[in-house]
Amino acid sequence: MSKIEIVPLGGIGEFGMNCMGIRYGDEMIVVDAGMGFPEETPFGVDISIPNFDFLEEYRDNLTAIILTHGHEDHIGALSYILRRFNLPVYSSRFTLALTEKRLGEYGMLDDVLLHRVSAGDRIKIGVFEIEFIHASHSLVECFSLAIHTPAGTLIHTGDYKIDDTPVIGKPYDLEMLGRIGDEGVLALLCDSTNATVPGRTPSEMAVIPAFQEIFEQTEGRLFVSTFSSSLHRLQIIFDVAHEYGRKVCVLGRSMQKNVEIAEEHGLLKITHGTMIDLSAARALDDDEICYLVTGSQGEMRAALWNLATSTYKGLEIEKGDTVVLSARIIPGNEKSISRMIGHLYKRGANIIEEKRRLVHVSGHASQEDIRIMVETSRPKFVVPIHGEYRMLFRQKEFIKNHVAGYNDDNIVLIENGNVLEIDQYGASVVAEHELHKTFIDEESSEAIEFETVRERKRLAYGGAVSLVVTVDKSHKLTGEPHVTFQGVANIDPLNGFSAKARESVSKAVADMRPEHIADRKMFKENLRIHMKRFVQKELASKPVIVTTVVEV
Amino acid sequence: MSKIEIVPLGGIGEFGMNCMGIRYGDEMIVVDAGMGFPEETPFGVDISIPNFDFLEEYRDNLTAIILTHGHEDHIGALSYILRRFNLPVYSSRFTLALTEKRLGEYGMLDDVLLHRVSAGDRIKIGVFEIEFIHASHSLVECFSLAIHTPAGTLIHTGDYKIDDTPVIGKPYDLEMLGRIGDEGVLALLCDSTNATVPGRTPSEMAVIPAFQEIFEQTEGRLFVSTFSSSLHRLQIIFDVAHEYGRKVCVLGRSMQKNVEIAEEHGLLKITHGTMIDLSAARALDDDEICYLVTGSQGEMRAALWNLATSTYKGLEIEKGDTVVLSARIIPGNEKSISRMIGHLYKRGANIIEEKRRLVHVSGHASQEDIRIMVETSRPKFVVPIHGEYRMLFRQKEFIKNHVAGYNDDNIVLIENGNVLEIDQYGASVVAEHELHKTFIDEESSEAIEFETVRERKRLAYGGAVSLVVTVDKSHKLTGEPHVTFQGVANIDPLNGFSAKARESVSKAVADMRPEHIADRKMFKENLRIHMKRFVQKELASKPVIVTTVVEV
Repeated sequence: MSKIEIVPLGGIGEFGMNCMGIRYGDEMIVVDAGMGFPEETPFGVDISIPNFDFLEEYRDNLTAIILTHGHEDHIGALSYILRRFNLPVYSSRFTLALTEKRLGEYGMLDDVLLHRVSAGDRIKIGVFEIEFIHASHSLVECFSLAIHTPAGTLIHTGDYKIDDTPVIGKPYDLEMLGRIGDEGVLALLCDSTNATVPGRTPSEMAVIPAFQEIFEQTEGRLFVSTFSSSLHRLQIIFDVAHEYGRKVCVLGRSMQKNVEIAEEHGLLKITHGTMIDLSAARALDDDEICYLVTGSQGEMRAALWNLATSTYKGLEIEKGDTVVLSARIIPGNEKSISRMIGHLYKRGANIIEEKRRLVHVSGHASQEDIRIMVETSRPKFVVPIHGEYRMLFRQKEFIKNHVAGYNDDNIVLIENGNVLEIDQYGASVVAEHELHKTFIDEESSEAIEFETVRERKRLAYGGAVSLVVTVDKSHKLTGEPHVTFQGVANIDPLNGFSAKARESVSKAVADMRPEHIADRKMFKENLRIHMKRFVQKELASKPVIVTTVVEV
Repeated sequence: MSKIEIVPLGGIGEFGMNCMGIRYGDEMIVVDAGMGFPEETPFGVDISIPNFDFLEEYRDNLTAIILTHGHEDHIGALSYILRRFNLPVYSSRFTLALTEKRLGEYGMLDDVLLHRVSAGDRIKIGVFEIEFIHASHSLVECFSLAIHTPAGTLIHTGDYKIDDTPVIGKPYDLEMLGRIGDEGVLALLCDSTNATVPGRTPSEMAVIPAFQEIFEQTEGRLFVSTFSSSLHRLQIIFDVAHEYGRKVCVLGRSMQKNVEIAEEHGLLKITHGTMIDLSAARALDDDEICYLVTGSQGEMRAALWNLATSTYKGLEIEKGDTVVLSARIIPGNEKSISRMIGHLYKRGANIIEEKRRLVHVSGHASQEDIRIMVETSRPKFVVPIHGEYRMLFRQKEFIKNHVAGYNDDNIVLIENGNVLEIDQYGASVVAEHELHKTFIDEESSEAIEFETVRERKRLAYGGAVSLVVTVDKSHKLTGEPHVTFQGVANIDPLNGFSAKARESVSKAVADMRPEHIADRKMFKENLRIHMKRFVQKELASKPVIVTTVVEV
């Protein structure tokens, strides 16, 4: 009997870009196809996606994509994987509604087969049988997956928390999980995002009292910013606004889109007349309106940044306004959020942050949630997923020290590009591939070559020199070389540096042997090296040198 | 009688780069000349310094530079300001020792007049009389300044905390501060770094129990990473190491330098034989050694990063090692620290972070320290300094709500480049200058033009196209254009894009009127625009276009 192969393409050792291949025999399913948010933004890179080249060797094995839920770090790369591998997609109604919207924008809807499944369903995809376990999270209609294979059952938790009292939908389906646990689980692939956090993650309900207080005490206008996908939170804000006699106006495209889809599907229940548009909102008194806005992470294109720094559709933050930041700080956004808060204070706003009031709870399992997950499913092996290595490690450490029966042998740490073979007798990494993530160019939304990004980094670091020389048929220089500088440091325009550079090149060429000029490749390379040394000596700079040889 | 003019060049609305001009009549002193750590590092920018161009208009007024203490964000730009304005420098023995080291490296020592002052001193610099108040902070020999002028007395706190039991030196000199307060203080310029933190900042002593426990319980090798300037912390580590029978080996240049200077000046008291070099350290058993290392912020050039990811002078982190991160996370460093921790875990190290054990305390005043500062000095006005706008604002809010007698009128928020006029009758901003910070090029350590950094950003974002065309005397194209791409996205090398680009340019030139080619400036600009549109249409890219016209 074969072993199961687990092949993570993303999300292990990093936040976001979650994607994993699971193979048995000659069939492979892909769980999630998420996008990531790399640090390469200064280089015109907007997002990253998993390196789907890597799946080419499995092309004939691929049978389906399963999406655990609708967050961008789980579905954001779907259009890219589907363009290369036309696979059927399985997920919940709401997750599919979000993906349909996106695929429709790319004109891809006609070519894609979307299968709607519900919590509790059990479906067969070739050799795999998959059960969809209702999972609680900050989003709705999320799944943990039980993936049954002839070599045993895997549980893939997706993103989850054990929420006994979610605002929308039911608690995490521990009963179903327990039943599958009783039947025997080979491995648990378990979300590590909050594995460093002790205790239980508070229920989505936990923020209601703070919001009630805020709505009760606030006299001016209220602006609440949260993730547009945090549907429980949106429901609470609509409910509390209604309770305290405020209308709600939604600002920011992603928030409007999500509210629309969620209401269409009956997930968000908005009392008739509570949600109003901007012109109606502006006609109301300050204590009658709550704006629900995008931009809690200080994103410069989102509504809140514009409200704080200039105007958003004619609206701006003013003295007396109250701004509630109902979201955590995603690592990497600290500085932009801090800057945005500075702008809000300058405008005279009162700011309520999660540090000071309970206006946000996490959507991810803390340590005691993880304990419940492990103790309910009782897997033979635990494989921490979703998180930087630090979180994966801390999940291992926690389970090892706090759940009986687990140790270094049955908690397995893997990395992106690893191939983990697993069956009843053991789990071991049998191959390690180095996967460069695929960067997406911000202008074209197309994949951008890794090498191109490297070139941009070099240009960014030292600028560029364009050197043009003209040679005649006798391999002699004709006229003066042309030198142009872009982003090169320490050029004093007054001291005739360009002239000096031109002279230096002319002299260097005069010293070269004709056969070394005749060999154009060698000639160009020698010019490049000469210019590089000249610039480094004169300016202590290391620009990229681009040489062009014109022949006349 | 004149008013005092307060002119901040840095440190207001930002972390770091602290520098302030204080003028009375036709005399101006400068308090601190610090460096900043801008986000422009991808563009070859290492550090930033205040825009000293701005001081040119005060050139004839400048009389002295006073340094409150020796942290880089207060002294790091000293060599740059001294090269332009040869002013005498006043500070403590230890601060001067740190600056001497740096100025010596630049060969500037002979030209600079350094005046050593001690806590309690009162000196006269022209119209100003300055008293140096002993301040407690994470560093030693720090000052708050009382700056007496005919229009009243300013207190500049520098960086401080009210530490009643520092490890090295005396507590904050509240007696002196109180005496000056009794004499009357016009304005308090007060550190805001920790103005969002409730309560008192714990004493430097507070970390001793945690370190004693760690040294007692650890069996393997110990690595402690902290800021190399945190002398109290270093003293504690040397003491506790000695107490528990470990030797200390210092790794990393800045740490070695600071330990050397501090020991030379009798500030750091190291029991004979406790500090050993690397080769002696390697000969010891694991439980006999503590390495004191740089790199708590995940800096890729520092000792700890190298220990974690490869080797540092033949040494590397191994299974069984314990690493103590005895420092806070400076905003902006979250990701690199998290990555470093991941590497440490992978190597099998045990990691102790300040989040989980009391192995770090701040050097800055929390809210209750600020209250003590205000209540002891009883200034007419408070001007929050040192911090992002958010912290300045929160200091104002705290004092307004928690210290009697202060309100919107006598707590004054200013920004870099403002000119604040102040006397007994009022305080108001009379001018607002926009100050671009000065970037320092990483390769040359020289100032790099703001415009050059902008060019680099454009290159980084879209890459560059070099276009070369050759025209003859009749303004006709000779030969084919040359096109070179660097960092341009979406070029498929197989589809002959370069040929297409060349053709397109040839055709465009053929369509131009000879007089438009004869006007070389117009010709180049038209070529640039043509190429820009072509690339944008074909590739959806926005590179920088560099055009060269060769004449034959």
